[in-house]
Amino acid sequence: MEQNSKINVGVVGATGYTGLELVKMLVKHPYFHLAYIANSEGGTTINKLHPSLNGVCEDEVQKADIDAMAATCKLVFLALPHKTAMAYVKPLLEKDVKVVDLSADYRLPQDIYEEFYCPHTDRANLEHVVYGLPELNREAIKSAKLVANPGCFPTSAILGLLPFMDKRIPNTPIIIDAKTGVSGAGKKLSEVTHFVNVNDNLFAYNPLLHRHAPEIANKLDVSFDEVNFVPHLVPVTRGMISSIYIQVDEEFNAMKVLQEFYKHDIHVRVSDMPVNMKNVAGTNFCDIYVKRKGNMLFISSSIDNLMRGASAQAVVNANLMMGFDETMAIPDIAYVP
Amino acid sequence: MEQNSKINVGVVGATGYTGLELVKMLVKHPYFHLAYIANSEGGTTINKLHPSLNGVCEDEVQKADIDAMAATCKLVFLALPHKTAMAYVKPLLEKDVKVVDLSADYRLPQDIYEEFYCPHTDRANLEHVVYGLPELNREAIKSAKLVANPGCFPTSAILGLLPFMDKRIPNTPIIIDAKTGVSGAGKKLSEVTHFVNVNDNLFAYNPLLHRHAPEIANKLDVSFDEVNFVPHLVPVTRGMISSIYIQVDEEFNAMKVLQEFYKHDIHVRVSDMPVNMKNVAGTNFCDIYVKRKGNMLFISSSIDNLMRGASAQAVVNANLMMGFDETMAIPDIAYVP
Amino acid sequence: MEQNSKINVGVVGATGYTGLELVKMLVKHPYFHLAYIANSEGGTTINKLHPSLNGVCEDEVQKADIDAMAATCKLVFLALPHKTAMAYVKPLLEKDVKVVDLSADYRLPQDIYEEFYCPHTDRANLEHVVYGLPELNREAIKSAKLVANPGCFPTSAILGLLPFMDKRIPNTPIIIDAKTGVSGAGKKLSEVTHFVNVNDNLFAYNPLLHRHAPEIANKLDVSFDEVNFVPHLVPVTRGMISSIYIQVDEEFNAMKVLQEFYKHDIHVRVSDMPVNMKNVAGTNFCDIYVKRKGNMLFISSSIDNLMRGASAQAVVNANLMMGFDETMAIPDIAYVP
Amino acid sequence: MEQNSKINVGVVGATGYTGLELVKMLVKHPYFHLAYIANSEGGTTINKLHPSLNGVCEDEVQKADIDAMAATCKLVFLALPHKTAMAYVKPLLEKDVKVVDLSADYRLPQDIYEEFYCPHTDRANLEHVVYGLPELNREAIKSAKLVANPGCFPTSAILGLLPFMDKRIPNTPIIIDAKTGVSGAGKKLSEVTHFVNVNDNLFAYNPLLHRHAPEIANKLDVSFDEVNFVPHLVPVTRGMISSIYIQVDEEFNAMKVLQEFYKHDIHVRVSDMPVNMKNVAGTNFCDIYVKRKGNMLFISSSIDNLMRGASAQAVVNANLMMGFDETMAIPDIAYVP
Repeated sequence: MEQNSKINVGVVGATGYTGLELVKMLVKHPYFHLAYIANSEGGTTINKLHPSLNGVCEDEVQKADIDAMAATCKLVFLALPHKTAMAYVKPLLEKDVKVVDLSADYRLPQDIYEEFYCPHTDRANLEHVVYGLPELNREAIKSAKLVANPGCFPTSAILGLLPFMDKRIPNTPIIIDAKTGVSGAGKKLSEVTHFVNVNDNLFAYNPLLHRHAPEIANKLDVSFDEVNFVPHLVPVTRGMISSIYIQVDEEFNAMKVLQEFYKHDIHVRVSDMPVNMKNVAGTNFCDIYVKRKGNMLFISSSIDNLMRGASAQAVVNANLMMGFDETMAIPDIAYVP
Repeated sequence: MEQNSKINVGVVGATGYTGLELVKMLVKHPYFHLAYIANSEGGTTINKLHPSLNGVCEDEVQKADIDAMAATCKLVFLALPHKTAMAYVKPLLEKDVKVVDLSADYRLPQDIYEEFYCPHTDRANLEHVVYGLPELNREAIKSAKLVANPGCFPTSAILGLLPFMDKRIPNTPIIIDAKTGVSGAGKKLSEVTHFVNVNDNLFAYNPLLHRHAPEIANKLDVSFDEVNFVPHLVPVTRGMISSIYIQVDEEFNAMKVLQEFYKHDIHVRVSDMPVNMKNVAGTNFCDIYVKRKGNMLFISSSIDNLMRGASAQAVVNANLMMGFDETMAIPDIAYVP
Repeated sequence: MEQNSKINVGVVGATGYTGLELVKMLVKHPYFHLAYIANSEGGTTINKLHPSLNGVCEDEVQKADIDAMAATCKLVFLALPHKTAMAYVKPLLEKDVKVVDLSADYRLPQDIYEEFYCPHTDRANLEHVVYGLPELNREAIKSAKLVANPGCFPTSAILGLLPFMDKRIPNTPIIIDAKTGVSGAGKKLSEVTHFVNVNDNLFAYNPLLHRHAPEIANKLDVSFDEVNFVPHLVPVTRGMISSIYIQVDEEFNAMKVLQEFYKHDIHVRVSDMPVNMKNVAGTNFCDIYVKRKGNMLFISSSIDNLMRGASAQAVVNANLMMGFDETMAIPDIAYVP
Repeated sequence: MEQNSKINVGVVGATGYTGLELVKMLVKHPYFHLAYIANSEGGTTINKLHPSLNGVCEDEVQKADIDAMAATCKLVFLALPHKTAMAYVKPLLEKDVKVVDLSADYRLPQDIYEEFYCPHTDRANLEHVVYGLPELNREAIKSAKLVANPGCFPTSAILGLLPFMDKRIPNTPIIIDAKTGVSGAGKKLSEVTHFVNVNDNLFAYNPLLHRHAPEIANKLDVSFDEVNFVPHLVPVTRGMISSIYIQVDEEFNAMKVLQEFYKHDIHVRVSDMPVNMKNVAGTNFCDIYVKRKGNMLFISSSIDNLMRGASAQAVVNANLMMGFDETMAIPDIAYVP
């Protein structure tokens, strides 16, 4: 296939882990041509930033420039910190470029966003954004111009909870005890992510107050009070498991409910054994297991935090936005062993 | 101090990790003399089993023999699998040897034990045993002849829950999402503990059905139905954190409750930051942190599964049984970094 | 593309790590159809053996049967232990099936093989085998019926040494200090590969006597005496680095020698910084770095032990044997981060 | 024992890993009283810097001040970066305070120091310093006022090489392929020590040019040209193994040479199996193994980089300088499992 029959796309924020994952998929995409790569500095090549790409992709990395990306690309992936992202979204949409935004900037209604993040400077587009969880919003994504790619914790928690929300005893607490690999914290240096601090260690952080909790509550249509979310950092590079506890009363076959709910969703796999991190590492799969004892339902939901939790889900969204099969260029072969 | 002014003690089950930890403490004990070491085979030395002891302790390891241990020791530590242990306890007590049993054999009432383990063959001594959690039973331990050393998960969960049981809304679920290092699974080979299976991975096992759940319920005086316990294996050698969720309604200062409850317990440390595994590794400390949001109380309780969860707690119990200060020979310097 | 326009191939030994890696590549191969999968037991499916393949490949796994594989396949990959493998090779070749043998059985001349392994029962085919290191034998591989896929350590060591063998001062020692991830030891349970034994640890094994040393010596045309090979086990799942030391005297630009030597080899990458394990994990690349101080040349050569060290190199060999481009279905996107 | 019958000592540089290790030993020392703890800022307590010390040692940390330390201490440990250290040594010695300097500042003759580090500002004391490797300089250490504590790599390399230097074929290369845990790089944040960069990875750094090479050469009385030293970073918190290769010709029993050489050295253990990192973790032991093939001698030497490679060796030196048994307060129980 020739380059010029492909659709030009761009990645802004190529330095970080999610930027790298986007590039890894896009250079193999049958219908997208990765025509524009940028970070805040420019003046380098993608393989200098990520030497694993030596001999695979050695494209130039530009200093991010909105005119340049609009002149080149039909769709842009923004792999930027929140607040930085919204400054790009508005002008790109004005120039008719579609956007998949991997930041938190468009995931929440304005009031909730501003409570947990910062003032929002692009309220107009907040009206039109689609939350990019395909299992929730597949049809809306297909016609969206702006997709807010979900957070990693919300993706794993929501996918685990969705099939059971109507079985849950109303007003009982939803407990999400999540475990994440260190790549979720990004490349930025901090004491927390120093090898010596993480290796052979484990700890909770921001217990009950992490800002992914309001995102989970909002998308599940429950109050923030009902969502009790505690993330833990674990000595793993990539991977995320949400261990979820909810109370139910009626009788039902939990496994069947799960299978039925996701029977048309290729990127969710129902497991008859407790899920683990490695079976989904490097893929867009969400593996889900469920077990009941009395009125308690335990749901274990596993994703790769960089893939289903960020970049692979972003490419799925872009596939849908451009009319392609959602599996195009999405890895399904896990990093196992 | 001369050996003959010390009290002779023995360790049966010297091959495993808990046996090694017992030896490591007992060779440094100011009042105990480790006079007898045994496993099921004998004919070796402790440093051949555990080469880290080369030049430190090179004592002979006997084939376990009840008469020999009774002739030598005033107190014996049994670091044996359940079912095997009770076959030793009965004859040792008859010969007036005190016993700290690290197995599950005497932790539960007969009916619960037999439901989750196997038929019990020493019901008589089940009547007299003391459950060896010092924070719960310190005085009873001092006069006990037989102490059932608590399981690792129950130790971390119970210590976290005890101060708040009377604040909990009755009949609401207790959720214990536990994370354990691999040494908790023992030295026995299995697919599960193969490095390739554990490294960069994480998974729940026996969710809601693990047999430490009835032990937790029994010691907290709640029903098994109320305890929802899910252990997870994490890529760490030693360490255990229980993330606990309970519902409360009245107003109280959770940190103060915690501090007040443990003000006389030297081996519990109240933390104003989320606890981690490394700060207690190699010690008998249990570090506990608490955080509240609305009606939800999150408690994070961290121990070294081999120390506070097994061998160090066993030596504390032996100290108490023999009239010594409970801190004798108990390490308080953590494996940090 | 229709299945029946593809060439049918088979994998024998689907239970192990190298079997899994073969399947992962072959299900994505544009010209091969994975028509036959077997292990020693049969009666299962590939995703039951490797749950990461759920929803990706759920083919049946047969009990290995030579007639069945010959009836189905034009080429068979043998991912079996040495000694077991040669019992398959002979009948398969007689039935005109091409074979890529991943075991050690055909890597060495008979006398050396029998000194380090066991008696050889298929001497006839030892005459015709081609050692499957493409950088050494590409043309011969293209017309081979039987390819002996190289050992992992020899692959990394030989690729590092080849460009400099004619610069080396004759008769000076070749030192290869290798570090391997644990997957190289296979799936079999052993004390050595228990997580607790490997985590936060590192050690040499079989120093100077490992049986990959004669393979290295033989392919480099030097005596076993000249090769000093010490492998170390490191707490990593996959990856292998050979740190190589040789003595040289003439002046030359080591980097240029390296680049020139491999200028036509797509699966070797010359690096201007010390190589690491992750940049090649999951790929068939061998990354090589070289540094000189006085008469000492230090060469650092990194591969994925399961890919370039086994399965990916095997698929490269099969590609060449069947007349395809050697890169077909060979992953070049690394498991980074 | 009362505090006032103990000797007052101080630790400067309490923030880092080696500072912590010093404190961990000194609070348990029978004859030293840790009377002064400082870092560059002061105004905190040691348990705030290192929460694992909660309840164990909660002493104040001062802003480092030479008059204060001289007024309080008979001996000071300097756990400071090179260059910073020498600014303390001179005034402390003038005030008659003994010093164990853990930095590189006094390990080398001036010319070599200045080639590899920076200009030396205290040449006078360079004349009187003793290099604090007890196996080399035990008697001199006993009467020293200033001891330069050896580097971690030199400690492991020199202890492995010493017994065999007179067996080595003159002028043949000494090769030291070393592997170190990440704590050796200190607490300072850097891309290199980010968990994601180290986990499941391994790489050489500063190959052939690391500045511990001249220290090794100098202490072994060979030229820098003869020492070929390549350190590798491995995904381990603490531990260091030097894999050493030298050429020998005469016949001798290598194991016996080793045992004979170290028969009076309690902190060296000769091993009949390849050594590993965990057996010495947390202790001052150096475990050494040796294997010969033809003219090649392979020596594997393992230490804990923070203990024998820094802080424990420093306390041994202080013990000797103050006339105590060198084992006082030196841990010999390893972090195993």
